Amino acid sequence: MDKGRMEAFSDGVLAVIITVMVLEMKAPHGTSLESLRPVAPVFLSYVLSFIYIGIYWNNHHHLLYAVRRVNGPTLWANLHLLFWLSLVPFTTAWMGENRLAAWSVALYGIVLLLAGTAYLILTKTLMAAQKDDRTLAMAVGSDVKGKISMLIYAASIALAVVSPWISCAGYVLVAILWLVPDRRIERRIVE
Amino acid sequence: MDKGRMEAFSDGVLAVIITVMVLEMKAPHGTSLESLRPVAPVFLSYVLSFIYIGIYWNNHHHLLYAVRRVNGPTLWANLHLLFWLSLVPFTTAWMGENRLAAWSVALYGIVLLLAGTAYLILTKTLMAAQKDDRTLAMAVGSDVKGKISMLIYAASIALAVVSPWISCAGYVLVAILWLVPDRRIERRIVE
Amino acid sequence: MDKGRMEAFSDGVLAVIITVMVLEMKAPHGTSLESLRPVAPVFLSYVLSFIYIGIYWNNHHHLLYAVRRVNGPTLWANLHLLFWLSLVPFTTAWMGENRLAAWSVALYGIVLLLAGTAYLILTKTLMAAQKDDRTLAMAVGSDVKGKISMLIYAASIALAVVSPWISCAGYVLVAILWLVPDRRIERRIVE
Amino acid sequence: MDKGRMEAFSDGVLAVIITVMVLEMKAPHGTSLESLRPVAPVFLSYVLSFIYIGIYWNNHHHLLYAVRRVNGPTLWANLHLLFWLSLVPFTTAWMGENRLAAWSVALYGIVLLLAGTAYLILTKTLMAAQKDDRTLAMAVGSDVKGKISMLIYAASIALAVVSPWISCAGYVLVAILWLVPDRRIERRIVE
Repeated sequence: MDKGRMEAFSDGVLAVIITVMVLEMKAPHGTSLESLRPVAPVFLSYVLSFIYIGIYWNNHHHLLYAVRRVNGPTLWANLHLLFWLSLVPFTTAWMGENRLAAWSVALYGIVLLLAGTAYLILTKTLMAAQKDDRTLAMAVGSDVKGKISMLIYAASIALAVVSPWISCAGYVLVAILWLVPDRRIERRIVE
Repeated sequence: MDKGRMEAFSDGVLAVIITVMVLEMKAPHGTSLESLRPVAPVFLSYVLSFIYIGIYWNNHHHLLYAVRRVNGPTLWANLHLLFWLSLVPFTTAWMGENRLAAWSVALYGIVLLLAGTAYLILTKTLMAAQKDDRTLAMAVGSDVKGKISMLIYAASIALAVVSPWISCAGYVLVAILWLVPDRRIERRIVE
Repeated sequence: MDKGRMEAFSDGVLAVIITVMVLEMKAPHGTSLESLRPVAPVFLSYVLSFIYIGIYWNNHHHLLYAVRRVNGPTLWANLHLLFWLSLVPFTTAWMGENRLAAWSVALYGIVLLLAGTAYLILTKTLMAAQKDDRTLAMAVGSDVKGKISMLIYAASIALAVVSPWISCAGYVLVAILWLVPDRRIERRIVE
Repeated sequence: MDKGRMEAFSDGVLAVIITVMVLEMKAPHGTSLESLRPVAPVFLSYVLSFIYIGIYWNNHHHLLYAVRRVNGPTLWANLHLLFWLSLVPFTTAWMGENRLAAWSVALYGIVLLLAGTAYLILTKTLMAAQKDDRTLAMAVGSDVKGKISMLIYAASIALAVVSPWISCAGYVLVAILWLVPDRRIERRIVE
């Protein structure tokens, strides 16, 4: 089956997710520079979430680039990933409006952890669908970066009750780890 | 005529529908875990509706995969389907915010029943447009699953005044029936 | 220049327009069937606007199908059309929430008239860009249907102060006129 | 790597940005023509922002048309541009609802300046990715128009505290400068 429509639908969903988040940033009622201050934490949450959705789009792009076939299970694994990512605007809003309250920061991380797990499942499902074609399997390799991310997420969620700032530092760290798209795939394909 | 733009437009509309529903899940004002409780029924409605839109996208994907031609009536049959699906965010919100009140559960089912009927009409219209090409007709066959779904919807709508929980169980049952995309089409095309 | 991206962008904008309109239909607070009654005029406005956007998408699809080249002016003529159509959710909401108040019905018609004019300009700009290729020019012909629509819009706008119902009947009439996509183009291309 | 998905994702994001802005134009509660008056500044801000997003889409279209390859850095340079453009609905709403208050007009310009800078970075990154292919580099040339725009933005931001009207005139002037898409690229490619 053709992967074109799966890409197009994912692009559409991710484009809407990344854009509707900004709707949560309500224009303040005042006209002074001061009146922008309450928007600051919402803005910072937005920046972090924008980068996360950007990372997912980027890696999704790379992942499907290394793929020839998609089948029924792949479509559902992809929808499963999109489901968790679709919750990011909600967790971003809750975290942003509550100036990084402990539970909101933990929930933000839980959704990121579940999205990360969904991405892992999508990768495995895609590999299984490629049959003899080992391009993707070799490109992904042992996926050390993916495993480290999961550990940081788990630690950040647990630490949210201690200090939400440490948790947020954890989320920022994972984002930095992934900002560079998966060069392994790029390299393998070029070779 | 080319089916590409009909697919692209449908992907766009379904991507927006599936994503704007999450906007109905307003971030709670409290910061405790307790404050998330009122969001729970809205979240469950969202999960059910996400799965339904996912099922429709998946089957729409399979349906158009088996098709070569689209014509004027096909475009309108497709828009008719998108119309009923576009009402899902509204019925989801009403059902979710009212903790499964009888009428809201019935209306949710009515829109699903009408979307199911629209899908049936789209299938028939597409078959008519294929002329001598019987790939789609043979792949769809007697469509037992479609007919059973209609019966369950109708029963669930009628039972909503008795117990909304039974109705919801009906909607979940239909979703499970359809979670696996139409293997008939996949099989026929591969053969 | 390639027409692919102009189609993709138009599809995206029209998909968002047609879907965000439904967000104006707020889920009622009550749980009785009665509580749905205030939603009725909003729903009817939504149906009319959905059909109008559907008609525009359908005809836009047909129009670009008959076209080989797009250039700078074409892109702007297309954005001009999308601008007026993007105002339809606003006029729909104002008309729907005010149970067809005279001015809201008139404004709805004015935006339709301006969108119709923009479509006409787009057609002319596309024709000019095709140079020697007369496929589109011959397919569009004298465009009697377009001219009649303009007249009905103008009359409906003027009559809104007398009776909003007559105006709405005018808008419905134009919609019926256009429900069938432009068979002239379909016919010309097949020949 | 293929540029198709980068175009599709950008089209999606820009289509949502350009359309959700209109959601900020709330339908007035009154039914008289008078009740539309408070909507006027919001409408004018919307028109300006629609034109700006239209200009960006148009030039983005032309820019990628002259390009063969995209790579990792290009994808991020593109997301960076989309980030600043995604803030346009927010700055438009703040400016529109405050009848051109000084700070809101300055912030509007700052986001435009940052989007302009991001576009410049995207152009440079794309050039670097083309290696020996000098089509894009020759087409863009010395980019006088880009430099003038930056100067006008900077002056408009500084002048916002003196007179917001002069600043707005500056933004309108830049828009007029860019309304014609980059003919340099069109010309170079045709030759």
